[in-house]
Amino acid sequence: MVVELISVGTEILLGNIVNTNAAYLAEKCALLGCSLYHQTVVGDNEERMEEAIRQAVDRSDIVILTGGLGPTKDDLTKEVAARVFGRELYMDEHSKKRIADYFERIQSRAVTENNWKQALVPEGAIVIDNHNGTAPGLIIEDEERGKAAILIPGPPDEMKVMFEQDIAPYLNKLQPEGIYSHMVKICGIGESRAETMVADLMEGQSNPTLAPYAKIGEVHFRVTAKAKSEEEAEKLMRPMIDEMYERFGSSIYTTEESVTLEESIVELLKEKGMTLTTAESCTGGKLAGRILNVPGASEVYKEGYITYSNGSKEKILGVKKETLEQYGAVSRQTAQEMALGAADAAKADAALSVTGIAGPGGGTEEKPVGLVYIGCAVHGEVTVREYRFTGNREKNRDYAVVRALTLLREALM
Amino acid sequence: MVVELISVGTEILLGNIVNTNAAYLAEKCALLGCSLYHQTVVGDNEERMEEAIRQAVDRSDIVILTGGLGPTKDDLTKEVAARVFGRELYMDEHSKKRIADYFERIQSRAVTENNWKQALVPEGAIVIDNHNGTAPGLIIEDEERGKAAILIPGPPDEMKVMFEQDIAPYLNKLQPEGIYSHMVKICGIGESRAETMVADLMEGQSNPTLAPYAKIGEVHFRVTAKAKSEEEAEKLMRPMIDEMYERFGSSIYTTEESVTLEESIVELLKEKGMTLTTAESCTGGKLAGRILNVPGASEVYKEGYITYSNGSKEKILGVKKETLEQYGAVSRQTAQEMALGAADAAKADAALSVTGIAGPGGGTEEKPVGLVYIGCAVHGEVTVREYRFTGNREKNRDYAVVRALTLLREALM
Repeated sequence: MVVELISVGTEILLGNIVNTNAAYLAEKCALLGCSLYHQTVVGDNEERMEEAIRQAVDRSDIVILTGGLGPTKDDLTKEVAARVFGRELYMDEHSKKRIADYFERIQSRAVTENNWKQALVPEGAIVIDNHNGTAPGLIIEDEERGKAAILIPGPPDEMKVMFEQDIAPYLNKLQPEGIYSHMVKICGIGESRAETMVADLMEGQSNPTLAPYAKIGEVHFRVTAKAKSEEEAEKLMRPMIDEMYERFGSSIYTTEESVTLEESIVELLKEKGMTLTTAESCTGGKLAGRILNVPGASEVYKEGYITYSNGSKEKILGVKKETLEQYGAVSRQTAQEMALGAADAAKADAALSVTGIAGPGGGTEEKPVGLVYIGCAVHGEVTVREYRFTGNREKNRDYAVVRALTLLREALM
Repeated sequence: MVVELISVGTEILLGNIVNTNAAYLAEKCALLGCSLYHQTVVGDNEERMEEAIRQAVDRSDIVILTGGLGPTKDDLTKEVAARVFGRELYMDEHSKKRIADYFERIQSRAVTENNWKQALVPEGAIVIDNHNGTAPGLIIEDEERGKAAILIPGPPDEMKVMFEQDIAPYLNKLQPEGIYSHMVKICGIGESRAETMVADLMEGQSNPTLAPYAKIGEVHFRVTAKAKSEEEAEKLMRPMIDEMYERFGSSIYTTEESVTLEESIVELLKEKGMTLTTAESCTGGKLAGRILNVPGASEVYKEGYITYSNGSKEKILGVKKETLEQYGAVSRQTAQEMALGAADAAKADAALSVTGIAGPGGGTEEKPVGLVYIGCAVHGEVTVREYRFTGNREKNRDYAVVRALTLLREALM
């Protein structure tokens, strides 16, 4: 079953708001096993909206329209959709009563005449109650052509409740199979190389399928199966996931969509009963900030240091003056002493240190912008790695954070 | 000039990522004075992409395509666009060299064969260098029909730099009147209140216009003028901006789009010859991370502390054991001692402290999730403010960071 999304609204068209509704609906529909080939955004313009709806109805089975169901003259979605399906509008007494009740409940505003426009519905349409607002949702079916248009209000809280309570069950009834997926998340291997390593799996498979998603410093692969039950889907996906572990080994840190790299590391530290600290120069708190995104990280992380100046590296971390003079603040040696010094100062089992030139200034020929040293000390053993990032200041710092987490994970495994 | 956007990528189509690129590009193009009537999303499918491009070229003057320029077989945007415009692809030596240089610079990864595909460009196309990645941007012009397709890589940091540096000037040249704007950025005043304060200015004006943009913890107003020259535009905008200063006073920290709150604060510290440090509990490095986003912040920021545990608050900041026992770690008193202790430890002129309950766990009836105390010490004088945020963990931490910066700014003014 092919579903197509049309988002109506000039504020989306002009970029004043980000179209999160489309992402939400697309993901939900895909998980219900629907195929999605097109999303469109049109403004509050009658002619272009009609053209978009006609085209969508021609090429897809179900068209979901969001937005343009409000009380103002600009709100035209229902009127245009009714015309495309050849239906007249009539006053729906049930919807009218709900609108009156709604305004009585919130009290703060009186019903204005244009609000009753929202109770007009196309002949033969299924009316869906709105639990968070006034405009009802509508399903207009053309049984002869096997097509339908689903109209949902644009405000996300009205849209989501309506979709979950009424639209999803409606779509589900039309579908024989559901879609299930795992996200295989990999760190420490570049995007191109990772894709090359599983090119055959991406090519050769239809159920399950494998598709890559690039994240900053990580590569994620989604394994997706179509099946009548979750159990059956898991059976279909198992051999593919096993094969991924065969090829990527411990570079895979999770197969669950919801688990982040920092969560997997905090989990690992908890399992081992270890504590962690950080000493950051160029990342300046971003690494700690990311680790402490994890609820409950306090169990493994007590304190950390932002040592931006040479003086603070000496004073807080005990980096030797001679090291700084001889090799510079951005050096393998300094990263090493920073990691050891941080572990010592915080009395932590493990420590990560980051020192580098994030840019845009500060680079030299010998030590260019993007040069970053990351140190990882675990129980007194230090590993230092050199990286050369090529982004802007922000990206270099973000990459350094992910590389530091990856290095710690390797050291802990 | 009518511009149309096509976003290419199955991950957008299926809702795995939110289409922030489209919002960014739509907003920028509208600011340049372009008309936008359609946005479309298609997946990595040759046939549907070709159909979408042909339709867009027919009905619009310029089609901007994002995504699908990567090295994999799924990346087809360039190939399909070249076909629609009747162009062959050839190996562009300049782009090839840039890709080779890129991989040499980052060293950690070898060039794989599929990377060279990114140096193939359509005959006669304008090649735009990518400063944050490997795929170049491309402009394919059909002078006879007066049409053009602009191809930009999908990763937002690559897309944005390319748009600002090369695409925006290209579009601007095609327009008779340019659009110019200032962003009046305000901190310390809530969104609703700020909008009420300038409701008359938003209603009554057509050139310049005034429109609000809500950011986390800040309110931005864009002042936009249409004019033949920048000078003329500045003259049109001046009275409006003066009026904003009249109403918001020193709550306005800049009128420049590119200046951030943290930059304005680093600038203020530099002017006063003052240094700053931070002591963070619930924000765990995010506040320092944000300040150190500013290039050259090393002049005012030497070191900072992440004191997540009670022990570290005592040890590093000298918070009294009795204070922690009597009032708790999340209290006005602890925030005060943290700020004073941090300034002392870092020998800094100013210090910010943050202690709170970010959630989801850790809340009690007396001290609920979202309760945050922020301290600001300047030359030994401390101000502490209590905040009650209502978001999730991430949002609460982000709000705390902005409130801390705002408090410091007030103290410095």
